[in-house]
Amino acid sequence: MKVSQKALACNLSPMRKFYPYSVAAKQQGKKIYSLNIGQPDIATPTAYFDAVKNFELPVLAYAASPGIPELIKAIQHYYDNLGIHYEESDILITTGGSEALQMLMLSILDPGDEIIIPEPFYPNYNTFVKSAGGVIRPLTTTPEEGYRYAVREKLEALVNDKTRAIMFTNPGNPTGVVLTPEELRIIADFAKEHDLYVIGDEVYREFVYGGEKLATIGAFEDINENAIIIDSVSKRFSACGARIGTIITRNKLLQQQLLKFCQARLSVATLDQVASTALYSVGPEYFEAVREEYKRRRDTCYAKLMQIPGVIASAPQGAFYMMAALPVDNADTFQKWLLTDFDDNGDTVMFAPGEGFYATPGRGLNEVRIAYVLKQEDLERAMDVLAIAIKKYNETH
Amino acid sequence: MKVSQKALACNLSPMRKFYPYSVAAKQQGKKIYSLNIGQPDIATPTAYFDAVKNFELPVLAYAASPGIPELIKAIQHYYDNLGIHYEESDILITTGGSEALQMLMLSILDPGDEIIIPEPFYPNYNTFVKSAGGVIRPLTTTPEEGYRYAVREKLEALVNDKTRAIMFTNPGNPTGVVLTPEELRIIADFAKEHDLYVIGDEVYREFVYGGEKLATIGAFEDINENAIIIDSVSKRFSACGARIGTIITRNKLLQQQLLKFCQARLSVATLDQVASTALYSVGPEYFEAVREEYKRRRDTCYAKLMQIPGVIASAPQGAFYMMAALPVDNADTFQKWLLTDFDDNGDTVMFAPGEGFYATPGRGLNEVRIAYVLKQEDLERAMDVLAIAIKKYNETH
Repeated sequence: MKVSQKALACNLSPMRKFYPYSVAAKQQGKKIYSLNIGQPDIATPTAYFDAVKNFELPVLAYAASPGIPELIKAIQHYYDNLGIHYEESDILITTGGSEALQMLMLSILDPGDEIIIPEPFYPNYNTFVKSAGGVIRPLTTTPEEGYRYAVREKLEALVNDKTRAIMFTNPGNPTGVVLTPEELRIIADFAKEHDLYVIGDEVYREFVYGGEKLATIGAFEDINENAIIIDSVSKRFSACGARIGTIITRNKLLQQQLLKFCQARLSVATLDQVASTALYSVGPEYFEAVREEYKRRRDTCYAKLMQIPGVIASAPQGAFYMMAALPVDNADTFQKWLLTDFDDNGDTVMFAPGEGFYATPGRGLNEVRIAYVLKQEDLERAMDVLAIAIKKYNETH
Repeated sequence: MKVSQKALACNLSPMRKFYPYSVAAKQQGKKIYSLNIGQPDIATPTAYFDAVKNFELPVLAYAASPGIPELIKAIQHYYDNLGIHYEESDILITTGGSEALQMLMLSILDPGDEIIIPEPFYPNYNTFVKSAGGVIRPLTTTPEEGYRYAVREKLEALVNDKTRAIMFTNPGNPTGVVLTPEELRIIADFAKEHDLYVIGDEVYREFVYGGEKLATIGAFEDINENAIIIDSVSKRFSACGARIGTIITRNKLLQQQLLKFCQARLSVATLDQVASTALYSVGPEYFEAVREEYKRRRDTCYAKLMQIPGVIASAPQGAFYMMAALPVDNADTFQKWLLTDFDDNGDTVMFAPGEGFYATPGRGLNEVRIAYVLKQEDLERAMDVLAIAIKKYNETH
């Protein structure tokens, strides 16, 4: 029996491909510092669990297909506080940002249609785009240029009559790049002129370390028809397991298409929606505390990394990732070796090798994504282990 | 900006299209007996809510992409009790049966590929198939023939070199048809000879009213490579809002493709998986009690329906739906009229008009799907209201 060409064109996750080796390493008694997946260790606000415990209905019924009104209103209120007003019908609740992306790609891409994405990018974009029959047209950035991408000439060079959209994670995963208002304006103008959707994946919005509010694509009113926001409770409230996301757009025709997919899958999990509504009652002091914690981690991680000879990285301005070029021949080989052949006093470390974050073949071979989601002392130890490992690896390879 | 052709080819749900009229009718003070959606009124087992309340981890983290091992084992055990053994790797947890269907269609269908589905069928199949670029080749059945479809000549007439699969809901939604082991054998032989996937959507498995165990496609070992089971806790445990489903196949190549989609969307909601694991500890006495309740409802609904002159229906053998041809010119017009222009002592009734359950244009125009998900006295009243309404409608149209 045949499987589809589009499924064959997709890959397993580069964040999870070394999982079998990590299991084996653990069985050998190694301690692994896991910096490969963006799973924060911050406690989920208790408001979530309180809401779940207070759920009193005897039947766990389907919710409304667009989402429960209480959660939609909570998200509307959150955006009102950012100075951006959306109608309730502009906001659709999804099963994580992931489902939002899947529905969106199916709604805007036909086979052969193109979407511009700066690389390195979140690798799961590959599956969402390819399964819709679409093609990623990467805008290549480099560690030397700090992975910045909002450059008009570079954007213009990629557009053609198949181009439907430009999509980016802002703040950036895996790069930590935060767009300035001026950069976002460049992208907005570009999208407007070429009649493209602008998709801002802003799930890391609260994680900006320069003290500024994130410049968001939702604030540019002249591109109301173009702009689409992807958002989620996963990172914001350390509630990744809730699988509650949202897709926000003022484009009515697009809303209608998305609603078809919402209805086809009936609804998003009821309890998780109820509990996520309670998350939005958490005040700004929660975000501040978490942001400070991640900022310290970023500073630690970046400072330690810069002490390793030959490493190229820029201090990430947001999210909780950084991309770094390591002085090794191949990050994939190095990661495997870290799990199978190396330890320092029983410790080793796990990253996501960089190649899977690029669409252009041959790019990112010596890069890794580091998720600084562990507490200070663990991060420090992980960076020390990395320094020792690079030295030893290069002595033996 | 363009939206995709495949999204435009999809429709809003026929089960939900009269929702705005129902809201208006309620505002006028009408009481609506809702038989349009398969939302049971049976209490969800308390094991679900107990498990949720006992969840003690401070971080609501991502679960493993294929599903949590405890739930996979619980489902494995459930199938072992049916005499069918699956490996753990054969079972992937999904966000409802809906996500299972979406992932499956993306995994097996490329643009233009065909899938045979007996009509009338569950309308959301349209969106899952079309969004993958696929084409539904309907096997037309009729109320006069009791909506039966496992007829070799009819199947053979639909197959061509684009055909990839045959899919059916068994027990049937919307028809209530339950395949006999002999009928299932016909389909299995057909699939085997033509190298097709056989997709058994068996979410209503426990709702078979003749006393027999459901004949399942999973029991035919000679088609291990072809067989795919879609399953869910939604109807079985009256836990529709949990959004926990599963896709089960022994086909390794297909498993690999499905796993790509599982990884791309990271995981299924953690709490709902933990709580759904607890549901599988509910004993067979739970199924028996619920089955008896639905059987009574079916009997009531069918007996009352048969007293209305001109109605054509067969007693459904499973699930909790029946399809019926009504003596009206158009079920869509009739449904709208029921909400806008009719009431009997303030009461009216809501069905899902039949047209949306067919792929062949012009079919099902005078049919409706009735979900007998209300308690006895409400069902009786709903059928009485229907009888009065048909009479009045035909006097005025």
